[in-house]
Amino acid sequence: MREDGRQPDQLRPVKISRGYIKNAEGSVFIEIGETKVICTATVEEKVPPFLKGSTQGWVTAEYAMLPRATQIRTVRESAKGKISGRTHEIQRLIGRSLRSVVDLSKLGERTIYIDCDVIQADGGTRTTSITGSFIALVDALTKLKQEYHWKELPITDWLAATSVGKVNGELLLDLCYSEDSKAEVDMNVVMTGSGKFVEVQGTAEADPFSRNEMDQLLKLAEDGINKLIDAQKKVLILELGSPGEDECAKSF
Amino acid sequence: MREDGRQPDQLRPVKISRGYIKNAEGSVFIEIGETKVICTATVEEKVPPFLKGSTQGWVTAEYAMLPRATQIRTVRESAKGKISGRTHEIQRLIGRSLRSVVDLSKLGERTIYIDCDVIQADGGTRTTSITGSFIALVDALTKLKQEYHWKELPITDWLAATSVGKVNGELLLDLCYSEDSKAEVDMNVVMTGSGKFVEVQGTAEADPFSRNEMDQLLKLAEDGINKLIDAQKKVLILELGSPGEDECAKSF
Amino acid sequence: MREDGRQPDQLRPVKISRGYIKNAEGSVFIEIGETKVICTATVEEKVPPFLKGSTQGWVTAEYAMLPRATQIRTVRESAKGKISGRTHEIQRLIGRSLRSVVDLSKLGERTIYIDCDVIQADGGTRTTSITGSFIALVDALTKLKQEYHWKELPITDWLAATSVGKVNGELLLDLCYSEDSKAEVDMNVVMTGSGKFVEVQGTAEADPFSRNEMDQLLKLAEDGINKLIDAQKKVLILELGSPGEDECAKSF
Amino acid sequence: MREDGRQPDQLRPVKISRGYIKNAEGSVFIEIGETKVICTATVEEKVPPFLKGSTQGWVTAEYAMLPRATQIRTVRESAKGKISGRTHEIQRLIGRSLRSVVDLSKLGERTIYIDCDVIQADGGTRTTSITGSFIALVDALTKLKQEYHWKELPITDWLAATSVGKVNGELLLDLCYSEDSKAEVDMNVVMTGSGKFVEVQGTAEADPFSRNEMDQLLKLAEDGINKLIDAQKKVLILELGSPGEDECAKSF
Amino acid sequence: MREDGRQPDQLRPVKISRGYIKNAEGSVFIEIGETKVICTATVEEKVPPFLKGSTQGWVTAEYAMLPRATQIRTVRESAKGKISGRTHEIQRLIGRSLRSVVDLSKLGERTIYIDCDVIQADGGTRTTSITGSFIALVDALTKLKQEYHWKELPITDWLAATSVGKVNGELLLDLCYSEDSKAEVDMNVVMTGSGKFVEVQGTAEADPFSRNEMDQLLKLAEDGINKLIDAQKKVLILELGSPGEDECAKSF
Amino acid sequence: MREDGRQPDQLRPVKISRGYIKNAEGSVFIEIGETKVICTATVEEKVPPFLKGSTQGWVTAEYAMLPRATQIRTVRESAKGKISGRTHEIQRLIGRSLRSVVDLSKLGERTIYIDCDVIQADGGTRTTSITGSFIALVDALTKLKQEYHWKELPITDWLAATSVGKVNGELLLDLCYSEDSKAEVDMNVVMTGSGKFVEVQGTAEADPFSRNEMDQLLKLAEDGINKLIDAQKKVLILELGSPGEDECAKSF
Repeated sequence: MREDGRQPDQLRPVKISRGYIKNAEGSVFIEIGETKVICTATVEEKVPPFLKGSTQGWVTAEYAMLPRATQIRTVRESAKGKISGRTHEIQRLIGRSLRSVVDLSKLGERTIYIDCDVIQADGGTRTTSITGSFIALVDALTKLKQEYHWKELPITDWLAATSVGKVNGELLLDLCYSEDSKAEVDMNVVMTGSGKFVEVQGTAEADPFSRNEMDQLLKLAEDGINKLIDAQKKVLILELGSPGEDECAKSF
Repeated sequence: MREDGRQPDQLRPVKISRGYIKNAEGSVFIEIGETKVICTATVEEKVPPFLKGSTQGWVTAEYAMLPRATQIRTVRESAKGKISGRTHEIQRLIGRSLRSVVDLSKLGERTIYIDCDVIQADGGTRTTSITGSFIALVDALTKLKQEYHWKELPITDWLAATSVGKVNGELLLDLCYSEDSKAEVDMNVVMTGSGKFVEVQGTAEADPFSRNEMDQLLKLAEDGINKLIDAQKKVLILELGSPGEDECAKSF
Repeated sequence: MREDGRQPDQLRPVKISRGYIKNAEGSVFIEIGETKVICTATVEEKVPPFLKGSTQGWVTAEYAMLPRATQIRTVRESAKGKISGRTHEIQRLIGRSLRSVVDLSKLGERTIYIDCDVIQADGGTRTTSITGSFIALVDALTKLKQEYHWKELPITDWLAATSVGKVNGELLLDLCYSEDSKAEVDMNVVMTGSGKFVEVQGTAEADPFSRNEMDQLLKLAEDGINKLIDAQKKVLILELGSPGEDECAKSF
Repeated sequence: MREDGRQPDQLRPVKISRGYIKNAEGSVFIEIGETKVICTATVEEKVPPFLKGSTQGWVTAEYAMLPRATQIRTVRESAKGKISGRTHEIQRLIGRSLRSVVDLSKLGERTIYIDCDVIQADGGTRTTSITGSFIALVDALTKLKQEYHWKELPITDWLAATSVGKVNGELLLDLCYSEDSKAEVDMNVVMTGSGKFVEVQGTAEADPFSRNEMDQLLKLAEDGINKLIDAQKKVLILELGSPGEDECAKSF
Repeated sequence: MREDGRQPDQLRPVKISRGYIKNAEGSVFIEIGETKVICTATVEEKVPPFLKGSTQGWVTAEYAMLPRATQIRTVRESAKGKISGRTHEIQRLIGRSLRSVVDLSKLGERTIYIDCDVIQADGGTRTTSITGSFIALVDALTKLKQEYHWKELPITDWLAATSVGKVNGELLLDLCYSEDSKAEVDMNVVMTGSGKFVEVQGTAEADPFSRNEMDQLLKLAEDGINKLIDAQKKVLILELGSPGEDECAKSF
Repeated sequence: MREDGRQPDQLRPVKISRGYIKNAEGSVFIEIGETKVICTATVEEKVPPFLKGSTQGWVTAEYAMLPRATQIRTVRESAKGKISGRTHEIQRLIGRSLRSVVDLSKLGERTIYIDCDVIQADGGTRTTSITGSFIALVDALTKLKQEYHWKELPITDWLAATSVGKVNGELLLDLCYSEDSKAEVDMNVVMTGSGKFVEVQGTAEADPFSRNEMDQLLKLAEDGINKLIDAQKKVLILELGSPGEDECAKSF
């Protein structure tokens, strides 16, 4: 039994609130256990230089933590004057993951900025950010769809992420901070609703892992991500509360 | 009548939630109208270099906004690599204001870090930060008091802040963003529970103001701050819910 | 009696030299007691991005101190790679104050850069900068007026600033450094020739002040600023030495 | 057939030169096809703050490219004043990978700095850096072993890395730049001599991949890495040319 | 004849005022023609890390220009967040030059900071800085000599600098800005009172120069520097006005 | 006799390899003794802002060292976030020197970037960079000449550089690091094939030098540079191996 009473293959409770920040085109407050993240999606009518004139859009992400999201206060990156390697890695991961399910050619020359701000951190902040951002992204794209009378959302699949790992020799789903900090193997997996991999990042600083363990970890992750996508589907259908919600939920 | 239906001398609704972030020694989620700020207080057992060996403590503050707290997404200061002049001004103001009601000599050689992170901005973010931070500060000091068996909190008075201004020739209390952005005069006032001024910052870029207007603005601010301190007192007494709460509320 | 022999309501000696730097469109060397500042005004034929196409001009300020302006050598901000919060605050204050008496719509799409470089610091460097910069600004605008055959200077009023404060319980005008460093209350006031307030920044880190004290401090400041504006008027009339000087002095 | 005539499961030619930089404790010039990297290992007798007093050592890595390693000249990160997200990711990956096969507790309180400088880039620069750095690391540790009369090298296994990917629907080993830039799936794999995974980083920005494809990619990578480790073993035995070389090659 | 009426081998008027900034241990306002520089010398009781425990002192220099020292306003290096290559070169040159005539072993473990701030620039700012700083340095050392009862100043020789160059084919001493900006050859020379070279920096971006021209330029510089040292000697003897001035002037 | 057995007026062995980096328009690996530098020349079809519309080109240089080029590992400038004063000086020197032999008006509005990356440092890295870069520059210009059917290379002369100095009272050519680090006088000289000076930078921090010593040092440098230019000529003629090589070698 895990320290919070979960089974090895059990997710922490998931709670997703849409429309959390009034100004953003899409915004979500996602809580997975004690990890809490505000995800917003902002539409800007311009693209990075390398896409100018391409008729194609872009999705990019930024990630940060409030100083006291962590047990020990973290110094702000704005005060240090630079973004840490860890932050860079995470925001590149979130951006890449979301782009994998967006049809950028149908987005037009505009950029969706995803902002993930961790209010409270208890492990899995990057995967929670991806799972929550997907909903904020869908909401922002739905607004664009309505404004520009698109026939369908430029989304090709559902998307969620979780972490798995090996802790004290046991393979576990959805590590909280105390598990993550002593894990021998740590793996972040991003998958689509149709069961394909978008990102697999397995790391074994302390103890390299066998092919067999890898197979089991991927299975654990797959089952967890399916449940997260179920949660996403409920939120999009139950909360949207407007004509067309079903069509929205079905359109990808 | 103001655009949100308020009287000229009426505050927006105030809501203060204590214990918002589990790890922080003190934490508050304060909402004044649509302005929402997370304030945390962190205790660190060290002081800035200029206080080393002085047996005296320090209180300092940092302030930031989530990128989408604003109507147009604001670029992160961590991405720009430096803190703007506006942010510097605000965090210096918050720190100075809080220090004015703390007896630093009784704090011991430790620093209280106040972090104010604006989740949603609709005018008055700096004054809302001060009003909320005061509660987070009291909570952190209460923990220190219990841990070190201090006889009393090293707090000398209540503290709150609000903005007043002249908009279309009319003097108003607690400006929301749409009022603030067209104000001829903008004044931030920080006061104590005993009715003394800690900071008065009046600015009239567009239209210098007379002594008579100044007097009226200060009166408006005083009345508003008294109501904010009433709100603070309710929260400290009603929510603390532990033996000694009364003593805490009365000790300054 | 104050340590330099002044009465509580007495300014230090004021000396203003125009045309100090040969290349600048306007330049002033101002000495108030031992505080010495070089103020220059530079005309650039462009505006910040937010004013492009607005047919309106801009006035902005920068402030710095020579490393040895202070008793202990101050590290250069260029060497530290960033501008301190204090410097940000001061240059924003100077810029705002000067803009309050310039009719930006008559300036055309150009920017006046005000540079205030403190050669020697003995308290009141920001208010001295404002008082001196006003003259440099008028000189630069006079050149523009001559060059473009404007009918009048786009200046709406005289402008000067001083500090007041409470030191050892006594209310004093124009604090020198040794007074300022032990003041219980410190207030910077910027006023126009017609007696209106542009900025009032009162701070009481150590000892909050009553409404009555505030009233007395504002009165002290008002009297001091009137004398500073008298000094400005003498300089503009006596030194300009060219036909039209009277018209210049009277035009605002 | 691939554009350079290789089979899908064929590595590019591998060439490893030891002792390339005379001053470094370990140094290697590694060429894999047209990708060329200088790897050095430097011993410093101190550890990062979080390890002080722990009696444990550390291995960390830095990575850079000469401006003209790439087809289009890349602006130096020193000129930009900051390290890109990509560089951060790569140097964290190299450091983690090497630490996975070092017994840090036997290293003593010292740090091995690995520097990977890409002289010419044609795909796979991060995996080439890992494969080359391992040899430089062993050489530096061998010097320490001799100097401090350690009984054995604090190395627990061989280590090498390669990239695999899906290009035009075909699964390929060891992508060169022109393949990498159009790959649907890109995966970097770091493995040990005993066939365990240290890092698996699979990314499918354009086209998520199935579990079956993942299995095949891992198999391709495993075969390639075994050949790279064979190459490493030849270099360590053939070039060391000193008594004890066999013992060195066998000791992990 | 030169544009300001000078002969080819004629210096501009030189004016040196000592004791210009009240707080600095040594301070000089030096004017050579329209080039005006404030030079201060500050004593700090510590040395750079590489000299700790060496019983030896250090002399280092910083150089800056007020934004409007130049015809076109120069952006502040503090605003740009970094020091330009030109500034770096100049401050290294000033520091090296002054160190060449200081007996650092007699200085004790302390650092003399030389600050050269150009108030108005009209060519030759770096050589003017060296010539002026030498006097500020002597004044600061004289204070140390008095305070610590040294037997003699740790100065080994007089030091001054000037520029020479080839303009329109003619060899000229002490270039003003308009000459310097069109010079085919530009050379800065630093020499001692005993006629030895400390620095010779000749540059011919536009038109390489012959050995014969070099010889003539060095002769021009030597004559000019002798006159500058005469000026320095007058200032040290005439202005010091205290017992021991002769001894000071003769001691090196 | 010198520590590596050379005569005072003897260069270290010189080895120049052209075409070292496949992508660069010009690239050279130059070794002078144990000092090893990669020099590349990159053509970019744009010029710095101050040359826009001038129909003139530009040549600029950047210089860096691998961290372990030096005996003690040097911290990367990208990690420090800024370029040191020494690097600035060197890259300005290299750029100026190369521009002195390029007819910029014939280059067209394009920039040649010279990158000098020191792989191993044993004294004379800046002069070695200049000598090697000249060949890379010629190669890049030769490509432009062929592409645009220029009649001749826009090169006006050969160019090379060396260091000379006074070590233990003896005047030496081409100082290696151990000589350089204890030199009383250090002088870098850049000369053309026709025997004219482009740069002379003599420094005597420890011991100012006489006019006679200067004359001898310049003679030593001149002889050394003539030999370096002989080496350059051999490489351009022997290695180019293409029709037109003679014409290339003769054209300046």
